[in-house]
Amino acid sequence: MHELIDSLFMKEFANKTLNAKNDSAILKIGNKKMAFTTDSYVVNPIFFPGGDIGSLAVHGTVNDLSVCGAKPLFISLGMILEEGLDRAVLEKISRSINAAAKKAGVSVVTGDTKVVEKGSCDKIFINTSGIGEIFYDGLSVNSIRPQDAVIISGPIGEHAISVLSKREGISFNTSVKSDSAPLNGLVRKALAVSGRIRFMRDPTRGGVATTLSEMVERARFGICVDEKAVPVTEQVRQACELLGFDPLYLACEGRVIIVVDSRDAGKVISAMRKDPLGRKAKIAGHITKEYKGKIYLDTLSGGRRLVTMLSGEQLPRIC
Amino acid sequence: MHELIDSLFMKEFANKTLNAKNDSAILKIGNKKMAFTTDSYVVNPIFFPGGDIGSLAVHGTVNDLSVCGAKPLFISLGMILEEGLDRAVLEKISRSINAAAKKAGVSVVTGDTKVVEKGSCDKIFINTSGIGEIFYDGLSVNSIRPQDAVIISGPIGEHAISVLSKREGISFNTSVKSDSAPLNGLVRKALAVSGRIRFMRDPTRGGVATTLSEMVERARFGICVDEKAVPVTEQVRQACELLGFDPLYLACEGRVIIVVDSRDAGKVISAMRKDPLGRKAKIAGHITKEYKGKIYLDTLSGGRRLVTMLSGEQLPRIC
Repeated sequence: MHELIDSLFMKEFANKTLNAKNDSAILKIGNKKMAFTTDSYVVNPIFFPGGDIGSLAVHGTVNDLSVCGAKPLFISLGMILEEGLDRAVLEKISRSINAAAKKAGVSVVTGDTKVVEKGSCDKIFINTSGIGEIFYDGLSVNSIRPQDAVIISGPIGEHAISVLSKREGISFNTSVKSDSAPLNGLVRKALAVSGRIRFMRDPTRGGVATTLSEMVERARFGICVDEKAVPVTEQVRQACELLGFDPLYLACEGRVIIVVDSRDAGKVISAMRKDPLGRKAKIAGHITKEYKGKIYLDTLSGGRRLVTMLSGEQLPRIC
Repeated sequence: MHELIDSLFMKEFANKTLNAKNDSAILKIGNKKMAFTTDSYVVNPIFFPGGDIGSLAVHGTVNDLSVCGAKPLFISLGMILEEGLDRAVLEKISRSINAAAKKAGVSVVTGDTKVVEKGSCDKIFINTSGIGEIFYDGLSVNSIRPQDAVIISGPIGEHAISVLSKREGISFNTSVKSDSAPLNGLVRKALAVSGRIRFMRDPTRGGVATTLSEMVERARFGICVDEKAVPVTEQVRQACELLGFDPLYLACEGRVIIVVDSRDAGKVISAMRKDPLGRKAKIAGHITKEYKGKIYLDTLSGGRRLVTMLSGEQLPRIC
């Protein structure tokens, strides 16, 4: 997938904006700098503990805008429905979209609905595109410097475990709820206290490991992650042991990785902890001059190992 | 569908922008007025005479922006792919998207790709959202006045017949090519010669009849259409007779309906005819004080009949 996007799309649609490979495109519109992003959602099942495809579609796009330093403003809603989809299901999802948009302070301003025959799509797919106004300029992988702190805003992997356990009918002692949430409030609090935040990204598909791998790709720095400082709940850890997953590769939908000048890391953490979504925020690693282009993990067991990007398929239909 | 959108979505997502029910949302961004739109494409087959799902996805969004008086600028691209889709197919579609975007003068600035298991989607679905800058203000159903002329830019129904004949394996004497095309150039020419253009809309799903029906809904005017002035090619007419369709209900993807003060209709037609896409532009009807909320057709056979919105299903997966 990663190879496909790189080789095919980037070549075909080569232009400066797309090549920046941000979660959002940064556009000059009149006297404003705007962010523009799109995401399709194909999560299966469409309802899972802690959310559904509707709220997920809003949060995902709100978060893609937020991590670019933008205030999310407007959202579009494209739905593809399978013929025969229960009207009650559609109503529930619509209410969920609406509630999520209200909570995140964005307006659904334009939409489109297509219906395909039974069997031509799995229940419902949703695309949301979003427009936001940049209020914090210069967030970029290129701003990252050795010694910078790597903050993770909260426990990782809950979204993936929630969706997987619902899909596979696996239950744990208590059900794991998705972390799906709008990050704009939390991000704003962090950005308000430091002018030295370098870069942010929400670790969705492929989790923290994949997000960090994308950061170090072709970079002149490496990342050292302290496994014991990575927030993971006991439930997620147990589920991972049972299912053979590494939490570092599991998708989050309401967590953010923030790279910040280490001198400001303390006050950014304090600010984040004042937000319900950032209560468990932690410095989980730092940028290194060594290990150029690589990520090293200081493991719980006291060793040090290389973290690589998933070579095979990532978990399908997790978002 | 129409009822579903009206009753469910409009109620759920009630806000001023969405309620305007334009093809695009009109947004104030800084010192600019922008249009924002989204559309998903599920056309079957994905390749048809005159185009494919890729070019169609670009044209559709370019056209939705154009008919709002906006210059299309930026496009997002969300793809949902069925596992196992031939890479050559994907390459062909990507090239087609790129060529269509270049021709229309828009940049694909952000994208997303999801892959679902075989059987969970039919080959490929594409969502394009677009942002354009409004350069012609005030286009609105509310600006329409009795006596205004209703112009159709060219022969109708070719897109629908092209897709249907490919899908059903029906061939006519010569193959009908889709009219799928970017309308921004044509629209700009029309808008350049008259400050009294009231409203524009591209007659896609449900064709001219549905677009006009949406215009007269709750309006204080009616529309009288002169059937013999409606541009239809002989091939489309024959295909319609064979298949039992009324060309008025067939989707176009490169045609525009323009409502203009009748005093300016002549010069608008002349300007449009200078564009290859507008060579067959014609005044096909006019706005009436009578028939409030209704459309009357002066038929080829000399009668007069009411044109209604399709009550059943429109042709599925035509775009």
